[in-house]
Amino acid sequence: MSPRSPLAPARFPDLPKIAGVRFAAVEAGVRYSGRKDVMLAELSPGTEIAGVFTTSATRSAPVLDCQAKLGRAAGDQGAAILVNSGNANAFTGRDGEGSVSAVVSKVAAELALPKARVFTASTGVIGERLPEDRITAQIGALAQGLSADGIAQAAEAIMTTDTYPKGASAEVDRIKIAGIAKGSGMIAPDMATMLVYIFTDAIISQPELQSLVSRLNAQTFNCITVDSDTSTSDSLMLAATGQSGVTAGPSFEAALHEVMLDLAHQVVRDGEGATKFVEVQVSGAVSEAEAVQAAKAIANSPLVKTAIAGEDPNWGRVVMAVGKSGAQADRDLLSIWFGDILVADKGWVAPGYREEDGAAYMKAQDLVVRVDLGVGTGTATVWTCDLTHGYISINADYRS
Amino acid sequence: MSPRSPLAPARFPDLPKIAGVRFAAVEAGVRYSGRKDVMLAELSPGTEIAGVFTTSATRSAPVLDCQAKLGRAAGDQGAAILVNSGNANAFTGRDGEGSVSAVVSKVAAELALPKARVFTASTGVIGERLPEDRITAQIGALAQGLSADGIAQAAEAIMTTDTYPKGASAEVDRIKIAGIAKGSGMIAPDMATMLVYIFTDAIISQPELQSLVSRLNAQTFNCITVDSDTSTSDSLMLAATGQSGVTAGPSFEAALHEVMLDLAHQVVRDGEGATKFVEVQVSGAVSEAEAVQAAKAIANSPLVKTAIAGEDPNWGRVVMAVGKSGAQADRDLLSIWFGDILVADKGWVAPGYREEDGAAYMKAQDLVVRVDLGVGTGTATVWTCDLTHGYISINADYRS
Repeated sequence: MSPRSPLAPARFPDLPKIAGVRFAAVEAGVRYSGRKDVMLAELSPGTEIAGVFTTSATRSAPVLDCQAKLGRAAGDQGAAILVNSGNANAFTGRDGEGSVSAVVSKVAAELALPKARVFTASTGVIGERLPEDRITAQIGALAQGLSADGIAQAAEAIMTTDTYPKGASAEVDRIKIAGIAKGSGMIAPDMATMLVYIFTDAIISQPELQSLVSRLNAQTFNCITVDSDTSTSDSLMLAATGQSGVTAGPSFEAALHEVMLDLAHQVVRDGEGATKFVEVQVSGAVSEAEAVQAAKAIANSPLVKTAIAGEDPNWGRVVMAVGKSGAQADRDLLSIWFGDILVADKGWVAPGYREEDGAAYMKAQDLVVRVDLGVGTGTATVWTCDLTHGYISINADYRS
Repeated sequence: MSPRSPLAPARFPDLPKIAGVRFAAVEAGVRYSGRKDVMLAELSPGTEIAGVFTTSATRSAPVLDCQAKLGRAAGDQGAAILVNSGNANAFTGRDGEGSVSAVVSKVAAELALPKARVFTASTGVIGERLPEDRITAQIGALAQGLSADGIAQAAEAIMTTDTYPKGASAEVDRIKIAGIAKGSGMIAPDMATMLVYIFTDAIISQPELQSLVSRLNAQTFNCITVDSDTSTSDSLMLAATGQSGVTAGPSFEAALHEVMLDLAHQVVRDGEGATKFVEVQVSGAVSEAEAVQAAKAIANSPLVKTAIAGEDPNWGRVVMAVGKSGAQADRDLLSIWFGDILVADKGWVAPGYREEDGAAYMKAQDLVVRVDLGVGTGTATVWTCDLTHGYISINADYRS
């Protein structure tokens, strides 16, 4: 177990109860012992559900099952989400589908739901058969334990290499939103999958909910990176019970964006070995897509990330990352800032820049690296962390 | 100065003299003291020259100058290549071009060559003005010191973070080939640029030489990666003096391929912090391009590279890397080998695989990771090294 990230928030937030949602968590011993490792969320009839998932070509069995089930309106049906940690049920051949089916059937029977309304996720080691009987044996206890205020336990049950549980909430126009997440990065596999579950009592149709979550995901979770690796199991699901009686409007979108961004930042702040939280802003690209491309090249560059770990204001490595990104750039139009400090301007070190100012800035825990490409109007912001000895220790020694 | 890489060859090889090529190296004090840091190669009249360079959008001034000069037949003109270490003359604004021009003019005057036949390269820190006067002051001494057997000194003069000088040679059909390289990876910047200079006495036209070097580069230097970062200054030049009197044929191509692959492997073996040399073979892709895509995703994955550093036969991370690569793949057709050991087959762990066999294999210094995607006939091989605490130490502490 790694020590709590130095970038972690002081404590888990107080999350509001969401009308129509109940949670339970149990110790099923899937892989871990002495801690809760399975959570169940029960959703009231009429709950609309949307989701986004990893684009990996080697997606896990639960991801494939969820994707097949999404996209239908709730009608008067309830729903459930069950998540286990310790085993990813990924690259487990045809048996993986059997495990999903067994868990789904048991939850459906226990909560009197159609199987098409039971969603699952698994996070943990890849390539080992899911011991599904340990989970199905606990479904009765989970159903018994369902409670409107169990969300904090649910956040703990889905943790793997996380060093703290992650939660965020918002309230707007009498609509409540509460979300939990796990992940030590957009990173893969073993136990570093990112899972996000967000609940709201807003009234919103399934197609609108799906459109909203896809759009906001592109600005939040798809803009974070710890090490450029992508899990076989990343899942984000959003459930809207409608029980507030209030229809979602523009202010709901803003509030949901805030919750998703908060959770996304918490994932970066738990990045494996992270000691710095870094916002990379790119402007002046020929398109938004090229701005994202340049920003991700900077955020994923091992040389940029090790320089940040070393508190080295090494703007030459930022130039390198922009150069290799494939985004259109012109040396003589490129400018770079560390925070508010202009370090490079129009193709060379800025005339007023002093290395000691850059070095002093890099000692902060939260950093902003800003680049203007000077060739267009495209902008993007992504978030990452530094690359440290801690990352190597965690990942070189992890499974053995 | 880092200790010599554990993957280094026992010693610098004996390289043959190439008729029509003379070398010199001096201590110019560009940045380092107490070591040679500038090399000059003089090429006899009629020498054809071809080259390939970094595709970075923030290419250095010397790279831009070389690219502008290549592509013309030699006629009865000689040529020269001058390289300094310690300063990359990259991201130095318009002054960078002035520095190149000053060095080129001085070499042209000293050796009585047209400026269009003088090529330069610079490797070292980015964003600091090249102290070109320290170089121009030494051109006379370099010209005086030219010698047919100076190639080993030249290989040392171009080193930066390299832990050993790199050389390789071949002889075929009375044609000789000798090459030198520097680089601790395809990696950037500061001092990790890759430079390669190869000399031969074969007779070959400039267009044929260019076509050959481009084709072979795609199979050699473009198939190595240390950390996925790309320098602003990577340069490979090939000079053919024609003085053997023998016209290059198919066996020349094979010999040149061997020299280039040898040098490329030596660069990987000097990868920053490397303790393992890894060949990644991908077969069964829908195209060669997708095979390269999958192989590079594996070779660049921080999670795969840290697992290798930890001698962990973590094939789940290979599945993850294939999944995120974007190459077409099907879980149920995918197979993975570590060396000759089949570890995963058709979507799951191979029935006969024993973890202790995988763990024993991973203790070797040279490793092969093989993946068959099972969806086509495309193949590719790339080479990389592991990601260790040594990489973090070198790059987090480097400049400060």
